[in-house]
Amino acid sequence: MIGAGGVATVAAFKIAQNADVFTDFMIASRRKAKCDKIVDDIHKAGYKLDIKTAQVDADDVEQLKALFNDFKPELVINLALPYQDLTIMDACLACGCNYLDTANYEPKDEAHFEYSWQWAYRDRFEKAGLTAILGCGFDPGVTSIFTAYAAKHHFKEIQYLDIVDCNAGDHHKAFATNFNPEINIREITQKGLYWENGQWVETEPLEIHKDLTYPEIGPRDSYLLHHEEIESLVINYPTIKRARFWMTFGQQYLKHLEVIQNIGMSRIDEVEYEAPLADGTGTAKVKIVPLQFLKAVLPNPQDLGENYEGQTSIGCRIRGIGNDGKEHTYYVYNNCSHRAAYEETGMQGVSYTTGVPAMIGAMMFCKGLWSKPGVHNVEEFDPDPFMEQLNKQGLPWHEIHDGDLEL
Amino acid sequence: MIGAGGVATVAAFKIAQNADVFTDFMIASRRKAKCDKIVDDIHKAGYKLDIKTAQVDADDVEQLKALFNDFKPELVINLALPYQDLTIMDACLACGCNYLDTANYEPKDEAHFEYSWQWAYRDRFEKAGLTAILGCGFDPGVTSIFTAYAAKHHFKEIQYLDIVDCNAGDHHKAFATNFNPEINIREITQKGLYWENGQWVETEPLEIHKDLTYPEIGPRDSYLLHHEEIESLVINYPTIKRARFWMTFGQQYLKHLEVIQNIGMSRIDEVEYEAPLADGTGTAKVKIVPLQFLKAVLPNPQDLGENYEGQTSIGCRIRGIGNDGKEHTYYVYNNCSHRAAYEETGMQGVSYTTGVPAMIGAMMFCKGLWSKPGVHNVEEFDPDPFMEQLNKQGLPWHEIHDGDLEL
Repeated sequence: MIGAGGVATVAAFKIAQNADVFTDFMIASRRKAKCDKIVDDIHKAGYKLDIKTAQVDADDVEQLKALFNDFKPELVINLALPYQDLTIMDACLACGCNYLDTANYEPKDEAHFEYSWQWAYRDRFEKAGLTAILGCGFDPGVTSIFTAYAAKHHFKEIQYLDIVDCNAGDHHKAFATNFNPEINIREITQKGLYWENGQWVETEPLEIHKDLTYPEIGPRDSYLLHHEEIESLVINYPTIKRARFWMTFGQQYLKHLEVIQNIGMSRIDEVEYEAPLADGTGTAKVKIVPLQFLKAVLPNPQDLGENYEGQTSIGCRIRGIGNDGKEHTYYVYNNCSHRAAYEETGMQGVSYTTGVPAMIGAMMFCKGLWSKPGVHNVEEFDPDPFMEQLNKQGLPWHEIHDGDLEL
Repeated sequence: MIGAGGVATVAAFKIAQNADVFTDFMIASRRKAKCDKIVDDIHKAGYKLDIKTAQVDADDVEQLKALFNDFKPELVINLALPYQDLTIMDACLACGCNYLDTANYEPKDEAHFEYSWQWAYRDRFEKAGLTAILGCGFDPGVTSIFTAYAAKHHFKEIQYLDIVDCNAGDHHKAFATNFNPEINIREITQKGLYWENGQWVETEPLEIHKDLTYPEIGPRDSYLLHHEEIESLVINYPTIKRARFWMTFGQQYLKHLEVIQNIGMSRIDEVEYEAPLADGTGTAKVKIVPLQFLKAVLPNPQDLGENYEGQTSIGCRIRGIGNDGKEHTYYVYNNCSHRAAYEETGMQGVSYTTGVPAMIGAMMFCKGLWSKPGVHNVEEFDPDPFMEQLNKQGLPWHEIHDGDLEL
């Protein structure tokens, strides 16, 4: 596993809980101390799995290759930054490793979500006999598997798909993002996009929003965003007439976001800046990306867990033609408690809902259930064993048949 | 003159307009190119004064001494950063130069306004036979001279003093500060403070506010802040029972300020940050003060002038016992148009209202009207010739006798 942030911490805990499947495990990251800390925490929590750690710069293919050739992993779980997907895929190809990630590649200099860069690796993975599993977190990941499960069991034809993502948690901070603030802010400040009648429709950022009611939570203002799983789902389920993604934001969050943009701190270009060297030997002219610097002063998402209350609710609201030939609706969702996630892994619900599916995806691969040479989105695999594990691994799901989808 | 920002640009223009008083003039700053640009602009505007320029780091007493020993200025006009007041005063003492500034010394690591550091130089300036004139901008500066003028001509006893500072301009940016953002934000985010019945009363930041009506502008929400001139005025006019300072802020400005604080960008401590070197030779660990970095991404106050509309209105509202032994009120103020200031100097009104008084103070010294060994606040000098120049140099003032002060 590459990465040592909140999601990686959760995945590592869950891997340690499933030591019958995961026998040899290494955590590598730019800072080895962070990996060692995770291992410490896991052992303190009473799990026995022996875990190796290593230092690696995931931007550097040669370093990755050296590490892979040394540890010889069957599967590389990529929980590093989305910028690093391609270097890690390159190293996997070079060393004969299978691959799994949770977020699509993004170039560093533009906020832009699409699978094209990673899908371009299809032939190479297929020829090498290697499996690459893309987007195996919650959204993308579980939302795609929910859709695959609906298609397999409940619908002859999925026509309308709305993925709804609510975080009704309260972390008691004036402002904080629930995962890497840089990635979070890039995601939200880009234009909205949805699929309708065979084409993409673009919106201004956060232009479309409406109140949606979430189970055990109630109504929350939800904003239409572009989200990467839509891109593969409309290809894999060509009967879909309209596919959209909605995420809740509070007014306080949006106010902060607006100001962050107004004052230039969401910029992702480089600003030249002269600053004193930390070692006191003078000053240096450095290049600073404002959004990356902002990340350094905002609360670390990994530190939000302790007083985080409330829950997340993420699911798929689907309308289409059921197996009986009639129109049906189906809402499949998981609610996750921030406090329960923290008590189990020391991380809040947003990290938990991403880290658990990453582990289950790896389990699917290791058990030989999800193994298919090439580069695949998760809905291309059998959803049933994954859905079964969600219930066992802390993310139980619920179904509402023929309810009011509000959409 | 040390400094080459917006205020320095205005002061230089006004000095060039008064070449009968200012015969030998040099502008020095950390970046000589900025000084040369000011000289260019002045000459392009048709003023003939020959102006020297030089590079100097105002944090470095030795560099300042070398410069002063070379140019041998009679008076050093300090329009650099408030952090640099003491190094410049030290160099003035060492080289036998008189001194004038517009803002009190502040230590870099705490937002804190007081004169004690500079008043501690009184004996040394007095013994050296040198004059130091403190706080000769608009506020502090003209507001203190307005008070001195009121005391000299209209009041036996000043009892209540409210300094009111309104900027009713619109720069058509989502957010920008009117002068150095770092200094501006430090000023506003500190606790409020006012003088009442012989003691200082502290308030939470922006705790006390009320609508005040400004001439030609109308009512504007005005916030009680601590401002440095209060400190010397209550000493020099001990009959004052209450002295306060009020400044207007719009809701949009305050919203941005709140978020800037919430996200940690108003912090003035150092954050360690690793960044690529601008010359591409690797990365370096540097120390960055978030508020200083924010300054680098916010609009430059010097660039606000072009589309700046509306005006500033700054004055003193005074109540006390008049020369007739009866209670009177007196409101003396100046209104300044951003557009007119820009057309004359290329700078907006906030720079203009600070730069013009700095020039007049220097003129008072050069004409021998304000020359008195020691360290003095401006109200300790004769206000009359200064008031006369305000009318001639672009900052005409107006009086309202026995009106409703609202306060």
